[in-house]
Amino acid sequence: MSTNVIILAAGKGTRMRSSLPKVLQPLAGRPLLGHVIETAKKLNADNIITIFGHGGELVQQAFAAENVQWVEQTEQLGTGHAVKVTLPVLPADGISLILSGDVPCITQDTLKKLLDASTSTGIGLVTLTVADATGYGRIVRENGKIQAIVEHKDASEEQRKIKEFNTGIYAVSNAKLHQWLPQLSNNNAQGEYYLTDIVAMAIADGLEVASVEPERAFEVEGVNDRIQLAALEREFQQYQAKQLMQQGVHLIDPSRFDLRGKLNAGSDVRIDINVIIEGECTFGNNVEIGAGCIIKNTDIAAGTKVQPYSVFENAVIGSDVQIGPFARLRPGAKLADEVHIGNFVEVKNTHIGTGSKANHFAYLGDAEIGAGSNIGAGTITCNYDGANKHKTIIGDNVFIGTNNSLVAPVRIGNGATTGAGSTITRDVADHSLAVERSKQFEKENYQRPQKIKK
Amino acid sequence: MSTNVIILAAGKGTRMRSSLPKVLQPLAGRPLLGHVIETAKKLNADNIITIFGHGGELVQQAFAAENVQWVEQTEQLGTGHAVKVTLPVLPADGISLILSGDVPCITQDTLKKLLDASTSTGIGLVTLTVADATGYGRIVRENGKIQAIVEHKDASEEQRKIKEFNTGIYAVSNAKLHQWLPQLSNNNAQGEYYLTDIVAMAIADGLEVASVEPERAFEVEGVNDRIQLAALEREFQQYQAKQLMQQGVHLIDPSRFDLRGKLNAGSDVRIDINVIIEGECTFGNNVEIGAGCIIKNTDIAAGTKVQPYSVFENAVIGSDVQIGPFARLRPGAKLADEVHIGNFVEVKNTHIGTGSKANHFAYLGDAEIGAGSNIGAGTITCNYDGANKHKTIIGDNVFIGTNNSLVAPVRIGNGATTGAGSTITRDVADHSLAVERSKQFEKENYQRPQKIKK
Amino acid sequence: MSTNVIILAAGKGTRMRSSLPKVLQPLAGRPLLGHVIETAKKLNADNIITIFGHGGELVQQAFAAENVQWVEQTEQLGTGHAVKVTLPVLPADGISLILSGDVPCITQDTLKKLLDASTSTGIGLVTLTVADATGYGRIVRENGKIQAIVEHKDASEEQRKIKEFNTGIYAVSNAKLHQWLPQLSNNNAQGEYYLTDIVAMAIADGLEVASVEPERAFEVEGVNDRIQLAALEREFQQYQAKQLMQQGVHLIDPSRFDLRGKLNAGSDVRIDINVIIEGECTFGNNVEIGAGCIIKNTDIAAGTKVQPYSVFENAVIGSDVQIGPFARLRPGAKLADEVHIGNFVEVKNTHIGTGSKANHFAYLGDAEIGAGSNIGAGTITCNYDGANKHKTIIGDNVFIGTNNSLVAPVRIGNGATTGAGSTITRDVADHSLAVERSKQFEKENYQRPQKIKK
Repeated sequence: MSTNVIILAAGKGTRMRSSLPKVLQPLAGRPLLGHVIETAKKLNADNIITIFGHGGELVQQAFAAENVQWVEQTEQLGTGHAVKVTLPVLPADGISLILSGDVPCITQDTLKKLLDASTSTGIGLVTLTVADATGYGRIVRENGKIQAIVEHKDASEEQRKIKEFNTGIYAVSNAKLHQWLPQLSNNNAQGEYYLTDIVAMAIADGLEVASVEPERAFEVEGVNDRIQLAALEREFQQYQAKQLMQQGVHLIDPSRFDLRGKLNAGSDVRIDINVIIEGECTFGNNVEIGAGCIIKNTDIAAGTKVQPYSVFENAVIGSDVQIGPFARLRPGAKLADEVHIGNFVEVKNTHIGTGSKANHFAYLGDAEIGAGSNIGAGTITCNYDGANKHKTIIGDNVFIGTNNSLVAPVRIGNGATTGAGSTITRDVADHSLAVERSKQFEKENYQRPQKIKK
Repeated sequence: MSTNVIILAAGKGTRMRSSLPKVLQPLAGRPLLGHVIETAKKLNADNIITIFGHGGELVQQAFAAENVQWVEQTEQLGTGHAVKVTLPVLPADGISLILSGDVPCITQDTLKKLLDASTSTGIGLVTLTVADATGYGRIVRENGKIQAIVEHKDASEEQRKIKEFNTGIYAVSNAKLHQWLPQLSNNNAQGEYYLTDIVAMAIADGLEVASVEPERAFEVEGVNDRIQLAALEREFQQYQAKQLMQQGVHLIDPSRFDLRGKLNAGSDVRIDINVIIEGECTFGNNVEIGAGCIIKNTDIAAGTKVQPYSVFENAVIGSDVQIGPFARLRPGAKLADEVHIGNFVEVKNTHIGTGSKANHFAYLGDAEIGAGSNIGAGTITCNYDGANKHKTIIGDNVFIGTNNSLVAPVRIGNGATTGAGSTITRDVADHSLAVERSKQFEKENYQRPQKIKK
Repeated sequence: MSTNVIILAAGKGTRMRSSLPKVLQPLAGRPLLGHVIETAKKLNADNIITIFGHGGELVQQAFAAENVQWVEQTEQLGTGHAVKVTLPVLPADGISLILSGDVPCITQDTLKKLLDASTSTGIGLVTLTVADATGYGRIVRENGKIQAIVEHKDASEEQRKIKEFNTGIYAVSNAKLHQWLPQLSNNNAQGEYYLTDIVAMAIADGLEVASVEPERAFEVEGVNDRIQLAALEREFQQYQAKQLMQQGVHLIDPSRFDLRGKLNAGSDVRIDINVIIEGECTFGNNVEIGAGCIIKNTDIAAGTKVQPYSVFENAVIGSDVQIGPFARLRPGAKLADEVHIGNFVEVKNTHIGTGSKANHFAYLGDAEIGAGSNIGAGTITCNYDGANKHKTIIGDNVFIGTNNSLVAPVRIGNGATTGAGSTITRDVADHSLAVERSKQFEKENYQRPQKIKK
């Protein structure tokens, strides 16, 4: 039986006060709709039908790489109308999950349970039981079976005490959708077609309506404004943090940890306060990340200690490396084992060999550095001549003096040494010393400039 | 009718354990009393009378620029006594708001409502209803009308269940203050003159006592110790964050956002965790501020992206600028559109023209840089000769090599180029190449220093 | 009478999912067991007997410097068995506190109260009263006297409503331990020897069982997994923050403050958000610490302002110093009064004299700098020749130009000046100017490299 996922993503989201369509607002670094599509993919859905409306081109662009079928809802005539516009492309058989692009945290687990419960009945929904369901459509049950969904405004005093409500997430057999949706009426105060009405149709047809509850309430929380978005971001972050802690990650403060992507962590990984992880990162055993580090798409091997306020993007770091504080690794930085990178050092598109060190103020760009070399403080690879980028090749066991300018393309041979303050424009042979320097001149009893009176 | 604001600011604040008078302790970067004066000014008060006592000179100094009338309370004989000392300067007509210098968050809205409610009655007060009012003076009402304020210690069992209490914020007609205050007695356990007693006088005079409640409880919270100060700081910050989110600002974590002043934000401004905004800042549409940035009195035009851990003060930044991480803009930094400022770059009192770049380690001080120029890594403007500051002028389309020292005063012409590692002491003509460099010397089979055995 | 402390520290802590024994997991920067040992030392315990098991060598190593008596529990047969293995080394007389290595926050105060209460009775325990004690061993009392401890699974419906439970912290006379522990039986479902059973023995012997409650619930919280560890870390941090605020420290956000050690603070110390204090630090009056600073084992004298994102370790800072942002002080940095250290400056093993300045990008390592000197931007002490470290001596009132490389060993005399961009390899006499520089060469109408088409 085919499984389809229908995602309602046509809303404008006026209350966000944004020029961006609501479903493109990011949660944990990914658009709201992206979370729902990701979950649909994890469920191995046969097709993902997304209903777009407002800002549709932007939305389609954002997910151009995804295998999504787009259906336009030109007028916003209610949730029932939205799903109805998918009928032309909806298979006759199979079952459909109906999700919302602005309810991003629904999990694969809850949806699997919903599918399992709904396959035999033909219809099921996700409900949630809370202390006070004011405002929501209540689930009216008799002997445990769902009898009706009653909107808050239509509910009796007694019904308003019901704590279980409809979250708007459904699983429905495609056959039933093809049968029921054309029958929806907009004969109500708002003049809208409500998807909820299919529940009454199912009950009228004598079907039992299945239901499941999510494990965590935030799975069914929707986002309508910035305050809700920020609140859901925090709930999602706390959930992710808890998962990592259960796997054994030591988070010094889970309420000051942000994961915007995926972290694969070995054992005894320790992460200090205010760290942000973006994209996909892998940390080996005993990796320690200092306070305030921001690490994106970077793998760090076992035993490496990252000191505070280091910022990495698309880098690869070996084992037992010491790095930071205030280190910056830009795309293409690749550090072998036991490398030392100190404070205020920037590395870009550069391989650094085993045990080499650049402990203070250095910019290493478009370079290859061998093993056991030492890069002096203040050394800069002049990789850009104003028009093109060139390579700097530094061998093994090289000693580059402080404040050197290495004018690429240039090659410093194995075991070579350069003097402090040198600008190196020509290749240096293996084991040679290269110096670019004038004589030190001294003038006695020098009179310094005097403060000019203004 | 004139509106007067009387602010009680004579308390010592012993529990703060500080050498600073309590009303000078900062909340959101401004002294407690400063918040109250600011609110008084927003109400267009005709005069602001502030009662000082302990540390009075410091308090007056801190607000020397404000149009405030200072009245000294030499002895601390209670709140009633404090207001009484203002009588000599208090107009005969009009109405007075009586505020506390250590209750900083009372809003203009609440006070306007209080004035509106009190103008006809001659007296009104701000009350608050809470779950448990233990310790506070309860508002005793009959048929909705205030009958008395009963202090906790004097309250009956029944009265102690009352959840509405007196916050100590009043609006009273000046005529009544002139009438009642001289009648206050200190015939009580503490031997103090209590302002609260005027409520009983009003009721005895047959006046109805008006009352209003603030929208938010923290408006009437007072500060007596560091713990209360920190708690109120957080409540105030959350309130400000919520206001910004309602205006459409995307705060990644509102509980990790500090606004110490005012932020004017366009649409789709995104602010990552742990950002601090100080003074007055304006951010254009789509401005993004990375984690941990600290930005003071700085305007940032539309589309500019600020990477993490950038620190700005009194700077002006154009549109579509890329800046950071670890960028420092000091007062007088002015970046035109599309400028790029990279990591570990410091800019002070310097204009940088459209599209110019300084991507790594540079100190640009007292300089003027044209459009389309590129400043090499490690370049420093030597603006200080030990006695005076001098200017560096860099034209358009200039290419400054790495590790340059530009000894000011110096002018680098349009289209000029300087070689890596140069110290430039003389002006460089348009389109010239200037190099200061010796010959690279090489010594083969160089013997490096050996480790000395100790 | 001798006071003994017995610490149960043999547990593996499987749920931590760590290769480290549980009692070595850090809380506020110190191993869990370290907190308990520290508290035992504060109580002036005559001996501290620690029962180790899993990972025992690591545990002993970690506390090799402490005067602790180690007893091995080779098999994990329950808490009663654990204490029993200490009997061969436990004095016949005196009283013993029985603590857990994974309950780190129990305070000296609570334990003193427990000892006071238990000395006459021969046995006492710490209990806690909570809203819901589900899962815990309930304290059954009659006329206020403890009658029994009933485990949750054995408790009647009525007993399960009891809100007071046994925390597992005891004080017992050594004589009684010698009498009771050999009588413990493992005749129960788990086949373990339970220490709790001594309470029944005491009651059977007609002893009254004393009890005390801790002032704060977190004192008796145990740590079994990373989530509990993180939660307890926060409770402990909030507790420490509150203590500092009560002493008068101004914490801008106590929930974003981490103290991993001890802070001795003068009056009016202000600490901005996300500061971490490690080891032992002393801050004088009016010291201000900017956001995000990380300060370890560093003393800072009165009036010094530290700007954001400064990282210090084992440094000593005088009064009225200005430092940061992005300043790094490494071990041995010693700044005299009124020194200025600016952004991106690193100082290691270097004394800087009164009023001297290094305001931008500098690495000062293994140096001695006199008073009133100015170190230019980009200046680096070349302290390492690839094999040995050497000293740089800079006198008083020296002016070091920008981008200087000072090749140690080298001495710059009092009042000397060096030119911008110089590499100084020879000593400079007092009041001399030293310059290492070539002639500035200029080539007109220079053709820059052109972009290579690819």
